[in-house]
Amino acid sequence: MPASNLNPAANAAQTITVELPQNPYNISIANGNLATIGTAMQNPQLKLGRKVLVVSNPTIFKHYGQIVVAAIEAAGFSVNSCILPAGERYKTPASIQKIHDAALEMRLERSSTMVALGGGVIGDMTGFAAATWLRGINVIQVPTSLLAMVDSSIGGKTGVNHPKGKNLIGAFHQPKLVVIDPTVLKTLPAREFRAGMAEVIKYGVNWDKALFEHMEAAKRLDQLRYVSEALLNTIITHSCQAKAVVVAKDEKESGLREILNYGHTIGHAVESLTGYRVVNHGEGVGIGMVAAGEIAVEMGWWSREECDRQNILIEKCHLPTRLPAIIDISAVVPKLQTDKKVKAGKVRFVLPKQIGTVAVTDQVTPEIIQPVLQQLASA
Amino acid sequence: MPASNLNPAANAAQTITVELPQNPYNISIANGNLATIGTAMQNPQLKLGRKVLVVSNPTIFKHYGQIVVAAIEAAGFSVNSCILPAGERYKTPASIQKIHDAALEMRLERSSTMVALGGGVIGDMTGFAAATWLRGINVIQVPTSLLAMVDSSIGGKTGVNHPKGKNLIGAFHQPKLVVIDPTVLKTLPAREFRAGMAEVIKYGVNWDKALFEHMEAAKRLDQLRYVSEALLNTIITHSCQAKAVVVAKDEKESGLREILNYGHTIGHAVESLTGYRVVNHGEGVGIGMVAAGEIAVEMGWWSREECDRQNILIEKCHLPTRLPAIIDISAVVPKLQTDKKVKAGKVRFVLPKQIGTVAVTDQVTPEIIQPVLQQLASA
Ligand SMILES: NC(=O)c1ccc[n+]([C@@H]2O[C@H](COP(=O)([O-])OP(=O)(O)OC[C@H]3O[C@@H](n4cnc5c(N)ncnc54)[C@H](O)[C@@H]3O)[C@@H](O)[C@H]2O)c1
Ligand SMILES: NC(=O)c1ccc[n+]([C@@H]2O[C@H](COP(=O)([O-])OP(=O)(O)OC[C@H]3O[C@@H](n4cnc5c(N)ncnc54)[C@H](O)[C@@H]3O)[C@@H](O)[C@H]2O)c1
Ligand SMILES: [Zn+2]
Ligand SMILES: [Zn+2]
Repeated sequence: MPASNLNPAANAAQTITVELPQNPYNISIANGNLATIGTAMQNPQLKLGRKVLVVSNPTIFKHYGQIVVAAIEAAGFSVNSCILPAGERYKTPASIQKIHDAALEMRLERSSTMVALGGGVIGDMTGFAAATWLRGINVIQVPTSLLAMVDSSIGGKTGVNHPKGKNLIGAFHQPKLVVIDPTVLKTLPAREFRAGMAEVIKYGVNWDKALFEHMEAAKRLDQLRYVSEALLNTIITHSCQAKAVVVAKDEKESGLREILNYGHTIGHAVESLTGYRVVNHGEGVGIGMVAAGEIAVEMGWWSREECDRQNILIEKCHLPTRLPAIIDISAVVPKLQTDKKVKAGKVRFVLPKQIGTVAVTDQVTPEIIQPVLQQLASA
Repeated sequence: MPASNLNPAANAAQTITVELPQNPYNISIANGNLATIGTAMQNPQLKLGRKVLVVSNPTIFKHYGQIVVAAIEAAGFSVNSCILPAGERYKTPASIQKIHDAALEMRLERSSTMVALGGGVIGDMTGFAAATWLRGINVIQVPTSLLAMVDSSIGGKTGVNHPKGKNLIGAFHQPKLVVIDPTVLKTLPAREFRAGMAEVIKYGVNWDKALFEHMEAAKRLDQLRYVSEALLNTIITHSCQAKAVVVAKDEKESGLREILNYGHTIGHAVESLTGYRVVNHGEGVGIGMVAAGEIAVEMGWWSREECDRQNILIEKCHLPTRLPAIIDISAVVPKLQTDKKVKAGKVRFVLPKQIGTVAVTDQVTPEIIQPVLQQLASA
């Protein structure tokens, strides 16, 4: 229960610190935060040099580029921007080269800063470009999708895709600061909002029972406009707090951090088997949490009743709870074997024991998985 | 004076530890070391997984590939190799993609290892490919050039060139182990041997007076065959020790490590102004040390007599002490302004105070530099 120090009042500015011993950093959450980002960047403890490169995509830059660039310039920085085409299929080494060309163009120095203004795709790429320019310059994450706010902008995982596999190329590179302005979610497409909610439900199940219960108490969760400002605030702050605590305890994913993969084992397989075109990441995680929950019940780890509560919450977000019809169910288990996290040939699952508590196991056999998949097959 | 614990006896196996708090690692130096690398890799403290990718170039792999691959396989590892074309002009993001393709091909895991078998070019690329595969896998450096043995294989600087600038793209990624077998220097071209000697003289001036005096006592230093096994051993161990101590005190180059740039300020400018085709890196450093020495004398930091001793040592290695004739001397000072290490527009110089002791300054004005350059112009 990490969140006792969080103020649930709507619109209150809040700061969560990721307590990494070498490089602690803040996550700042407040409505209107974009307009004051320049002031935040003036904080002398950040030791940011004068040059700033803002990286974004056309959609997001059209909405928020001007306010961000103006705010940073007004604080005395010299700002350029680099706009990359939108979409996961541009999360490639070629896009990193474009960011590096822009870095060269404006002669970024070791003290210079890249600002990632966008969802997880822009965040991952900008973080990786910063990690690898002059062996590492500053990056500030300004997440604009719900998924990026509660997950990808925190923790320092950065990278791009290899033609044959997601996120295979990358580095750990922590941001100097994460700036979250929840008001930008107003322009986020509804399907992307729901994808972010999948990760939020993940934190409810793997870490934070109070967050879970706050969401249970809500009437609708499928679109931002039905979510009260107080609840949105709770969702973002509790999720950030969960991620911050887990990352601070295990920066390089050698232990605890693995629990953040709850729902991701089957989720990734589903994304991959549908060519990343049918379900998005959050939808895969939704299906994956249903599958992991059922496996946990099957193995006697979790109660039927709590598992049902999870599944109802997933449905309330209008996230899928069944496998897409086009999936060949017999292909799922073999696909799991190719997962990045396979250790010594054994697939690892994060399974719930109670709402708010999970454990990791490599004892889930194909004999347990297969019937669960059958059960989740589309009717 | 770091080297009191080093045994100067020829052929004695020696281990130097780079005492980084998070990830200390050993530099193992011994004739015949290549043939026992597999045994070294079995050390359970290294926690190396079963899969190993050896990266090299055709020349080096022809000489030493088989012995290394056989030694690693005999120790129970599964080995593939990735052979890249030789030469600085292939130190590019495209070569990194080739290493990554090979990594994907053999499904390297987080516990897997890349082995860099080659000079600084192979070492820098392999280190960077390992830094960025799955957000960082193991790398072992097996330097085969003198420069790589005494300098580039130690300290975790990795990277590739941007079309418009050297080493702009990279990361810090420390090796798990450095394996030096001085016998491989027998096949190293003489000019490459001399390039390595420039870095060795650097350590004599910026850190280790005893090393300097050992070299002064030698009759000839221009080719490996004139160097006694005992002296070669001293050269390698003292240099590795110097680099290890400096890196351990300042892993990310925020202070002390800057002294390793002695001779590199003007050196880099000379390399760059001649398009990296007239003088190689070590030759640039040779010229750069002469220039820095003369500047130090001019500024009253260093005695004429010690500076002359340095210059004689550089000449004894048949390294150039004058600017190449084709250089436009008036272009040097402007070029210095574009150096990576310029801070707030001020060029930084490492200057000797005594043999074995240097200091860093940004107080060297063009008015001091220009006459020294004139003086070093080719007759
Ligand atoms: N680094 C990590 O720890 C981590 C964790 C989870 C996911 N990820 C990565 O994150 C990526 C997914 O991130 P995502 O879901 O944010 O996708 P995304 O970045 O593609 O954004 C989704 C879509 O929403 C648009 N968008 C974003 N914010 C908007 C706004 N405020 N208004 C209007 N449109 C907006 C984007 O242009 C895009 O079309 C994947 O590449 C995934 O691998 C990384
Ligand atoms: N990472 C660092 O800290 C660091 C420090 C200094 C230099 N560097 C980099 O190192 C590179 C220069 O390294 P280098 O001088 O070793 O050049 P290199 O790697 O190009 O090797 C020089 C030549 O010698 C050949 N060679 C190497 N070992 C041999 C052997 N035993 N037998 C026969 N041929 C052999 C190579 O094939 C090559 O043709 C540059 O790219 C430079 O930027 C890096
Ligand atoms: Zn996720
Ligand atoms: Zn050098």
